[in-house]
Amino acid sequence: MTKGRLEAFSDGVLAIVITIMVLELKVPHGSDLHALRPMVPVFLSYVLSFVYVGIYWTNHHHLFHATGEVDGSVLWANLALLFCLSLVPVVTAWVGDNPRAPWPAALYGVVLLLCGLAWWVLERAILARAGPRSELARALGGKRKEKLALVAYGFGIALAFVHPWVSELVYAGVALTWIVPDRRIEHALRTR
Amino acid sequence: MTKGRLEAFSDGVLAIVITIMVLELKVPHGSDLHALRPMVPVFLSYVLSFVYVGIYWTNHHHLFHATGEVDGSVLWANLALLFCLSLVPVVTAWVGDNPRAPWPAALYGVVLLLCGLAWWVLERAILARAGPRSELARALGGKRKEKLALVAYGFGIALAFVHPWVSELVYAGVALTWIVPDRRIEHALRTR
Amino acid sequence: MTKGRLEAFSDGVLAIVITIMVLELKVPHGSDLHALRPMVPVFLSYVLSFVYVGIYWTNHHHLFHATGEVDGSVLWANLALLFCLSLVPVVTAWVGDNPRAPWPAALYGVVLLLCGLAWWVLERAILARAGPRSELARALGGKRKEKLALVAYGFGIALAFVHPWVSELVYAGVALTWIVPDRRIEHALRTR
Amino acid sequence: MTKGRLEAFSDGVLAIVITIMVLELKVPHGSDLHALRPMVPVFLSYVLSFVYVGIYWTNHHHLFHATGEVDGSVLWANLALLFCLSLVPVVTAWVGDNPRAPWPAALYGVVLLLCGLAWWVLERAILARAGPRSELARALGGKRKEKLALVAYGFGIALAFVHPWVSELVYAGVALTWIVPDRRIEHALRTR
Repeated sequence: MTKGRLEAFSDGVLAIVITIMVLELKVPHGSDLHALRPMVPVFLSYVLSFVYVGIYWTNHHHLFHATGEVDGSVLWANLALLFCLSLVPVVTAWVGDNPRAPWPAALYGVVLLLCGLAWWVLERAILARAGPRSELARALGGKRKEKLALVAYGFGIALAFVHPWVSELVYAGVALTWIVPDRRIEHALRTR
Repeated sequence: MTKGRLEAFSDGVLAIVITIMVLELKVPHGSDLHALRPMVPVFLSYVLSFVYVGIYWTNHHHLFHATGEVDGSVLWANLALLFCLSLVPVVTAWVGDNPRAPWPAALYGVVLLLCGLAWWVLERAILARAGPRSELARALGGKRKEKLALVAYGFGIALAFVHPWVSELVYAGVALTWIVPDRRIEHALRTR
Repeated sequence: MTKGRLEAFSDGVLAIVITIMVLELKVPHGSDLHALRPMVPVFLSYVLSFVYVGIYWTNHHHLFHATGEVDGSVLWANLALLFCLSLVPVVTAWVGDNPRAPWPAALYGVVLLLCGLAWWVLERAILARAGPRSELARALGGKRKEKLALVAYGFGIALAFVHPWVSELVYAGVALTWIVPDRRIEHALRTR
Repeated sequence: MTKGRLEAFSDGVLAIVITIMVLELKVPHGSDLHALRPMVPVFLSYVLSFVYVGIYWTNHHHLFHATGEVDGSVLWANLALLFCLSLVPVVTAWVGDNPRAPWPAALYGVVLLLCGLAWWVLERAILARAGPRSELARALGGKRKEKLALVAYGFGIALAFVHPWVSELVYAGVALTWIVPDRRIEHALRTR
């Protein structure tokens, strides 16, 4: 089975997820600069979530670029990832409306954690087809970065109850480590 | 006529249908955990509908993978299926808002039934081109699963007036039987 | 210049236009069957507009299937058509909310007329490249159907002020004549 | 790395950006012609923004048509452009609601300026791969048009505080100079 439509469908869902968040940036009622002030936290949470969905799109692009065929389990692992990512706009809006409350910051981390786990499952489903000795398996290696991110999300969730801003900084920090697309795959492809 | 654009357009519509349902997961007004409680039935109905649209996308992927060319009647049968699926977000929201009322649960089943019938028509339109002795016709076989699902939807609609939860369990049960993508086609393709 | 991205972008916009209309089918506040009654005209106008956008997608599919390369003027004629079609959801919602008022029915016809004119311009821009003696030019022929539709929209607009339902029936009638995809092109392609 | 998915994802995001603006064209509450009057400025700002997003899509189409491979920095420069363009619907709605206020007109210009800068960065990221002596580099030449547009946006922002309509006319004027797709690339491709 070819991967073309899986990529097209994922591109569609990710494009919508990344764009409907902008619907939360509701037009201010006033017409002067002060009217924009309540939008600042909503805007910042939009930026962070845009970067996260962008990271997933970039890595998705890399991962499937290095993948040949797909089967039913990859289709469903991919749908599970898209489901988790579709929850990002909801928690983004909640954090944007309540930037100083612990629960929204914690739930944002829970959704990031779910996305990270779904990504892990998707990688495993693809590797199960490619085999443990495939180029892709060697390229992905020990997955240290994935493990670190999951641990950091856990810390972020806990820190939300100490201070929400701290946990949001943790999430932003993890995003920074991922902005560079998955060099391992890119490197492996180049050396081929 | 090639099938490329039909697939691209269907991917677009299904990606939007599956994603706009998340707009119904309205951000709670409070900032603590209690504020999330009214979202639970809305969330559950979202999960069920996400799975159903995912099933249709997966089976659509399989069906057209095994199809060569398309004609006008396939284009319109496909548009009819997309129309029925576009009603899923509306009934999902209604069930999510009224999880204990009989009519929303019944109408949800009616929309599932319409989608099932439109799928049946689409299969027939494709088979009419491929011919009754084609590989695809043999792969789809007696369509026992399709028939069972339609009967189950009918039961679900009737049971909504006994107890809405029961009919929602029936719908979830049918979804489970479909999560496995259409193995018949996959199998037929492999043995080729 | 290749036509691939023009088709992909048009598929995206048409998929969104056809699907956001369903956002107007707002979830009824009650939970019984009576709550659905005010949705009936909204639903009917959704069906008509879905069919119209479906017709344009099908004919777009046929037209570009028979087209080789595109240039800047085709890109912009196509954007003008997409702009006109993007107004369909707005007038659909207005007609759905006011099924017995003359102005919404008339404006619906005006938008259909604009779409029809934009289609005409797009056909001309494509024919200007293909040349008057091309296969496509011969396939499209005298464009009797296009001319009739434009006249019918004009009648529909006028009749809205006599009785809105009559003009809506006229629009539905024109749609019926178009549901069959453009046989002329299909026929010309087959005889090739 | 191939450019196919970057184009598909960008098409998706641009299709959504260009279409969700129509959601701001809220259905008037009345049913006569007067009910449409408050929609006039909203409609005009929609037209202008549709043209701008159309320009970016057309030029994006041209730019990547002339590009071979892409790398991580192009992916992220492209995401930055999409982010800036995703802000267009927000400022469009603000201008449409407050056509005579200086701040919305100024912020509209700021977003246009950001899009222009992101475009510049994207061109540089692509040229960095293609090399300063590539065909593309020669085709893009001195970028006089880009520089003029950025200066004009700056003027537009300043003029918003003199009279908002003047700055909106400046933005519309810049759009007119861009409606012609990037002839330099088209010309360079033809002479090849």
